[in-house]
Amino acid sequence: MHILTVSLGARSYPIHIGEGLLQKPDALIDCLPQPRVAIVTNTTVAPLYLAALTRVLATHDVEAVPIVLPDGEAHKNWKTLNLIFDALLAHRCERKTTLIALGGGVIGDMAGFAAATYLRGVPFIQIPTTLLAQVDSSVGGKTGINHPAGKNMIGAFYQPRLVLADTATLATLPDRELSAGLAEVIKYGLIRDPSFFEWLEKNIEVLFNRDSAALAHAIQRSCQIKAEIVAEDEHENAVRALLNLGHTFGHAIETGLGYGEWLHGEAIAAGTLQALDLSRRLGYIGAVDVNRAADLYRRARLPVAAPDLGVGRYLKLMGHDKKVEDGKLRLVLLKRIGDAFVTGEFPQSALIETLEVSGAPAHV
Amino acid sequence: MHILTVSLGARSYPIHIGEGLLQKPDALIDCLPQPRVAIVTNTTVAPLYLAALTRVLATHDVEAVPIVLPDGEAHKNWKTLNLIFDALLAHRCERKTTLIALGGGVIGDMAGFAAATYLRGVPFIQIPTTLLAQVDSSVGGKTGINHPAGKNMIGAFYQPRLVLADTATLATLPDRELSAGLAEVIKYGLIRDPSFFEWLEKNIEVLFNRDSAALAHAIQRSCQIKAEIVAEDEHENAVRALLNLGHTFGHAIETGLGYGEWLHGEAIAAGTLQALDLSRRLGYIGAVDVNRAADLYRRARLPVAAPDLGVGRYLKLMGHDKKVEDGKLRLVLLKRIGDAFVTGEFPQSALIETLEVSGAPAHV
Repeated sequence: MHILTVSLGARSYPIHIGEGLLQKPDALIDCLPQPRVAIVTNTTVAPLYLAALTRVLATHDVEAVPIVLPDGEAHKNWKTLNLIFDALLAHRCERKTTLIALGGGVIGDMAGFAAATYLRGVPFIQIPTTLLAQVDSSVGGKTGINHPAGKNMIGAFYQPRLVLADTATLATLPDRELSAGLAEVIKYGLIRDPSFFEWLEKNIEVLFNRDSAALAHAIQRSCQIKAEIVAEDEHENAVRALLNLGHTFGHAIETGLGYGEWLHGEAIAAGTLQALDLSRRLGYIGAVDVNRAADLYRRARLPVAAPDLGVGRYLKLMGHDKKVEDGKLRLVLLKRIGDAFVTGEFPQSALIETLEVSGAPAHV
Repeated sequence: MHILTVSLGARSYPIHIGEGLLQKPDALIDCLPQPRVAIVTNTTVAPLYLAALTRVLATHDVEAVPIVLPDGEAHKNWKTLNLIFDALLAHRCERKTTLIALGGGVIGDMAGFAAATYLRGVPFIQIPTTLLAQVDSSVGGKTGINHPAGKNMIGAFYQPRLVLADTATLATLPDRELSAGLAEVIKYGLIRDPSFFEWLEKNIEVLFNRDSAALAHAIQRSCQIKAEIVAEDEHENAVRALLNLGHTFGHAIETGLGYGEWLHGEAIAAGTLQALDLSRRLGYIGAVDVNRAADLYRRARLPVAAPDLGVGRYLKLMGHDKKVEDGKLRLVLLKRIGDAFVTGEFPQSALIETLEVSGAPAHV
């Protein structure tokens, strides 16, 4: 088992990564201020892990209230959030009752937002069961829901007390979801760590074939990079924005196609390649590196062509991004593999050129 | 003008109290990270102060997006909150756009919760226009909305950057709302300051007749006490709970009668007298002090008899209180005027006796 720490003073917390951690809940039990939890999960994950988790908690005399939500990004909204509140109130959950998110990124974001706002805040634990959630969304305290006008527009920064990433849960993950998780793994290489990117180039098929040592390494390195960045800039005033490489484009794709049409990681793969295309047009990254990234995404079975939503629609959707400042769109771009930066200084014409080639593969 | 400070480290902020402050927005202007604000108000307050505030901001080249909500506690819910988000997104408000609450407690709580959660948090300023909001709800960072099962069940602690209490706005306040505000003013005397309580006994009619010097003193002293308590215990782990004297009973009254039937301050007056009745039954406060409190509320034209909801319904509603811990109801009780405490240690039979005399005036 690996243990990493997200260093945030009094709100610091550990990330436990290992195989079979769901069967060894000691760290979880130690976190609970009362022997009662509410487990937020969905209809896909519940049949796989809810009974086992409830049973192991019961052996420690911890009562678990199950809250099973419909599955998918299309349900990441007020209506589903209210199902959590209704259940918490119906079961008289209190300020000391811990909320546990058991599932992927959507479950983690919604359960986290519910924990941040139920009775103005209750304890929260993340048990991510998808690769994407284990390497990205369960760490760092971003919680929220979507609005019809944009992804994650409503939410809160709210840190969990513990992240428990059981790599055994990846065994049941559909291939498409595994690929989506790899998109965020590749992101860490692109923004911060060229040697990790090279390691991914060597090991992407091994990862896709679920070699457990390779997966454990990829998760650990991803969480390490994320924990460092979050510790430096919890509320995204500076360096944390780099974690959003490809996300302004990607969120436009998700919102534009309708939530749930593409998986988040798929949209991020295509969106990152749009960000790299723009970086190249602006004279930053070279064509060779764009092609390396496109090849890696393709080998991870991720889309390398963004959907053709039309330039006008892209611009409108991207205008709702949280990084817009004084009306100006700010994007994460790449100077080279391992070196990202945020800028609002680019000609609109270059962005339009990038959007105009939507629909075509990124390879140049 | 009086200036007080709520001391919360990096999140400290000033409370400005004075006549005509809406016409002198320098402190407000200095707070803004960009020359753009969204003003959240309601259909009652908008015709009185929205145009004037917008005009004075415009003279400082600050653009104001107006968001006018329906008035009343009955609208303090998801549906109305979403109207704020819809407007913020439609007008492309950004992370640096400041939300201003212009109105009473409901507007302050909802605008504050919107500020806490829009784009995971934007700057927030309170301009309370009711006595209740000026002495209580605008200070201390409690924000939220109601759930059908209970008051303020969903929300966040989120501090404003400035509170601007213009006492001139009290001139347009209906008598019933003035009385409701006095209920919270009296609370500060009861929980913390016997000499302030005596001052109120001497000046309650003067206050009700809107003597501006007396009102300014009452607001200042109330805010001072609240600021001290909030600075000591921002997230209500201890002493801050004392500010909820009468609120567990009061919230049950509000939820039980239907939101908006009684004003919050009216429910707090009757609920406080229930808390005092229980305190007396348990041998804490004496009958003389209960009668002093009842007399003061009566002179402030506030209800001194709680509605008769039935014991069972009261107990059910009170069971949803945020102070419930390990299934046990905890209440704020009074040892004597100026000395409150929180306890879960009381016989249920005493509470039932208190609830059984609902409907009868508190005078003993």
